[in-house]
Amino acid sequence: MTEKLIVFYNGKFMQEKNVQISPNDRGFVFGDGVYEVFRSYNGKLFYADEHIKRLQYSLSQLRIEINQMDQIIPVVHQLLEKNDLRKKEATIYVQITRGVYKRMHAFPDEKVDPTIFIRAREFTPNPYSFFKKGVKAITLEDFRWSRCDIKSVALLSNILSAQQAADCDAYESIFIRNGLLLEGSHTNVFAVMNGQLYTHPESNYILSGISREIVIHLCKKYNLSVIEEAIHEKQIPQVEELFLAGTSTEIMPVVYLNNADIGTGNVGPLTRRIQDYYRNFIEEYLERI
Amino acid sequence: MTEKLIVFYNGKFMQEKNVQISPNDRGFVFGDGVYEVFRSYNGKLFYADEHIKRLQYSLSQLRIEINQMDQIIPVVHQLLEKNDLRKKEATIYVQITRGVYKRMHAFPDEKVDPTIFIRAREFTPNPYSFFKKGVKAITLEDFRWSRCDIKSVALLSNILSAQQAADCDAYESIFIRNGLLLEGSHTNVFAVMNGQLYTHPESNYILSGISREIVIHLCKKYNLSVIEEAIHEKQIPQVEELFLAGTSTEIMPVVYLNNADIGTGNVGPLTRRIQDYYRNFIEEYLERI
Repeated sequence: MTEKLIVFYNGKFMQEKNVQISPNDRGFVFGDGVYEVFRSYNGKLFYADEHIKRLQYSLSQLRIEINQMDQIIPVVHQLLEKNDLRKKEATIYVQITRGVYKRMHAFPDEKVDPTIFIRAREFTPNPYSFFKKGVKAITLEDFRWSRCDIKSVALLSNILSAQQAADCDAYESIFIRNGLLLEGSHTNVFAVMNGQLYTHPESNYILSGISREIVIHLCKKYNLSVIEEAIHEKQIPQVEELFLAGTSTEIMPVVYLNNADIGTGNVGPLTRRIQDYYRNFIEEYLERI
Repeated sequence: MTEKLIVFYNGKFMQEKNVQISPNDRGFVFGDGVYEVFRSYNGKLFYADEHIKRLQYSLSQLRIEINQMDQIIPVVHQLLEKNDLRKKEATIYVQITRGVYKRMHAFPDEKVDPTIFIRAREFTPNPYSFFKKGVKAITLEDFRWSRCDIKSVALLSNILSAQQAADCDAYESIFIRNGLLLEGSHTNVFAVMNGQLYTHPESNYILSGISREIVIHLCKKYNLSVIEEAIHEKQIPQVEELFLAGTSTEIMPVVYLNNADIGTGNVGPLTRRIQDYYRNFIEEYLERI
């Protein structure tokens, strides 16, 4: 926790160390809240509207109403300014909870102001070697809830899965439910089989990833077909390429899954192309805005 | 939030309004923590050892280590004293999170002190009429994670289910998975069929309820057989009696489920007996300690 970091908390800019979350905040007591992570490049926000839209979706699913939605982007820009991040890469973390109320499971029986917390921090990307050489992942039986389409802060299952990956020196855990590959603990998953790109369709079992959408968009743009169908764990030996997509992760090749190479064990040609397309897409997007 | 409530937070007694939970507390950010709710009667704790044991189990499942476990009960007694609760009924809420660290999904990569928060509050029991006449419940397809044996604060699915019950003017939501009745959003469930008492066996799909254990103990003591087997939703029309068990809920008859009476629609004789046994058991326990 950087001592002098300026954050936004319930309408005010303040030093992070002065933020006082109540022990009755339903975020702390129940995980009753949602979040988003935005990225910025030299003060420009990447795909901000899509993140705001997803935030609105998550809030609506929990029936949390906030009036200040249109203030979030201006606040983010002020945070970048105040924290000297306008000439750097940054991630912006937005957390909104149902607010502070005496502990009861059902929603508060009177009107409560949601808690809004926003922090911008300099972004340290994954090492270049990860993108170039690929990483290791493991598969796990999905033990999460079945509303993974909501980007909630009740992330304990993701935490335990991320730690299980860390215990195995792996970058990510990929969830399997009823034999089908779903997504990673903090990424979406794409696989190449017979030269075709596959990814799990949108559903309540995966988060509708923004990077996932961009990859699908890029495939269409460059006439690469992408099939929104889950692949079965039995098909893993036939997978030629595997990669993860996420806002912080970008396009991350997986070359080793559980105890075996994926394909040749090297980053495949389709993954390379999508890495390039994705990088170029970000650059073009940032030039455009 | 009573202004003058004295709580225990990370080694100190203080007014609740002065507690400053960090926005980097992994309880707030991820729901990465556990809790327990104890009850006290005139300053005497009911079944405290069992709650401590379950707290230890939950912590161990998340690999959260605390050194101060043996301080919790003495702290609870001091809180009862400081808040003038020694001559009243109270509930004591204990929450332990993994602590404060910069946001990363895997466990912190250095040693972090867990956050310990304890609050005692006067207990307002459910209305007498609920116990006497019974309540309404609804069933819901279980959408929670599959580690319900951990009493974690990542309770969002329970929150949404409790709200769904509230929307239907019901006391509780009862989860069904693969057709089988599991437990309620904050209670365990018992059903009587053909004069026999049934409850879901211990598993990762239910919390190992302390009141559940007491009911089973009382059945053995009074020569009532209790079968630890789940009942199927198709069997609901044959259920003669249904009740919930929980630390705050005690023994709560359910006389109306979804849109139909359970049995005659009145509290059944076995439920009455168990209510009486349970009440007597608490009294005898409190006299003994």
